[in-house]
Amino acid sequence: MCRSATRRPDTNHVPTTRLEIEYDGGGFRGWAAQPGLRTVQGELESALATVLGEQPSLIVAGRTDAGVHAWGQVASFESEGQPPTSLASSLNGVLPVDVAVTGAAVAPNGFDARRDARSRTYCYRVFARSAPNPFERQRSLWWPRPLDREALGACADLLYGSHDFTAFTPTDTDHVRFEREVMRAEWVAQDDAILCFWIEADAFMHNMVRALVGTMLEVANGRRTPDGFAKLLGGGWREQAGETAPAHGLYLASVRY
Amino acid sequence: MCRSATRRPDTNHVPTTRLEIEYDGGGFRGWAAQPGLRTVQGELESALATVLGEQPSLIVAGRTDAGVHAWGQVASFESEGQPPTSLASSLNGVLPVDVAVTGAAVAPNGFDARRDARSRTYCYRVFARSAPNPFERQRSLWWPRPLDREALGACADLLYGSHDFTAFTPTDTDHVRFEREVMRAEWVAQDDAILCFWIEADAFMHNMVRALVGTMLEVANGRRTPDGFAKLLGGGWREQAGETAPAHGLYLASVRY
Repeated sequence: MCRSATRRPDTNHVPTTRLEIEYDGGGFRGWAAQPGLRTVQGELESALATVLGEQPSLIVAGRTDAGVHAWGQVASFESEGQPPTSLASSLNGVLPVDVAVTGAAVAPNGFDARRDARSRTYCYRVFARSAPNPFERQRSLWWPRPLDREALGACADLLYGSHDFTAFTPTDTDHVRFEREVMRAEWVAQDDAILCFWIEADAFMHNMVRALVGTMLEVANGRRTPDGFAKLLGGGWREQAGETAPAHGLYLASVRY
Repeated sequence: MCRSATRRPDTNHVPTTRLEIEYDGGGFRGWAAQPGLRTVQGELESALATVLGEQPSLIVAGRTDAGVHAWGQVASFESEGQPPTSLASSLNGVLPVDVAVTGAAVAPNGFDARRDARSRTYCYRVFARSAPNPFERQRSLWWPRPLDREALGACADLLYGSHDFTAFTPTDTDHVRFEREVMRAEWVAQDDAILCFWIEADAFMHNMVRALVGTMLEVANGRRTPDGFAKLLGGGWREQAGETAPAHGLYLASVRY
């Protein structure tokens, strides 16, 4: 399933390129290429084939699910020839409007966007107002109900450090290790109505941010206590935690190397 | 053409309601109702008919063109009965996702959203970066070329006060008075890439903000001088000014009463 894990250059002479990518996830069935489905990887590999005349395989820092957005996705690929300096604008010339390459640069030999990543940062956006906002549709979770912002902050504080996130990923899983190290977790008010949950960790499990957000919102809604949330961070069953928040509020914000 | 100009309540006993409205203009043929076309006024009047059981005529502060957005549009209407206190949420329950009512309140008798407005504020958003941004498509003008921000600022400074804006509205016009009073005009950097042109005036002519922006961008691009721009503010022909910037960068931001 995970191509990148077995993929290291067998020679130091194959040029590696690093791409920085933004996408509006609404029109994609996620990052990973799947036959017959519109995916970000599929569109990018097809654009690379058009521009380079060869179709390299992309290795990605964060395999986002259907509907999830990215401001700072990173992917790497090896190609026989040296990619042109104008690669980013050439790719943007053929890519559809919902995905853009914001940077393309030669990477150190052997650079692997997935394995070399030291941490990923995600942002989950909540639009908290009684009336919906036409500009925020499919860009944030609309939350017209009361929201206890202090409770959200208390939950975020509990996330710092290493925890067992078993309760925040589907029971039927390919993950073998359930501990993750959280370096940043905070709710930040962007303006009166928009609240952003920022979380940085070494790595994330499937659905982890969305399950954390869904559970924290149940605390903020008075249906759970911060203590109950804290207990889930020592391990637990998926059904003990809360709803999985919808994909369209989630953004892969950046990757640190 | 302008229904509002002849419309004053003939009695002080008809309740008047004031609506605050947001819309993403991309899917509308502008504000004003037109048979067979999807318009903001058409959608709102249809929603009012559903909720109130009668179809009042809306008077609007700023009649936006096709594709133009609004953060703070204001409209008023008279109705026989007192509208329910939950009017905004009832309307949002039946309105399409690209328009929302953010406020509905009883207005002073005889309130007229158009005639009583003391000023309107518009914002034109420019996204200045070599790569496009999937989240800014149809929300701002993508400007991948160099842009002299000092020149933009110099042009904005020239706009304060009263000027003859004949050069900034189509020659074939219904306007009879071409002078407008500008109370605010400035370019503000929202972040590294987004520049917003804010302009407040007593009233605006058709296409006026878009023609001003298109002409200022020609100054910022080195194709005109600020002096040339200044001369146009004393009157002139439409063809002496610059391009009309596209509708999708323009927002009716607020209305002052």
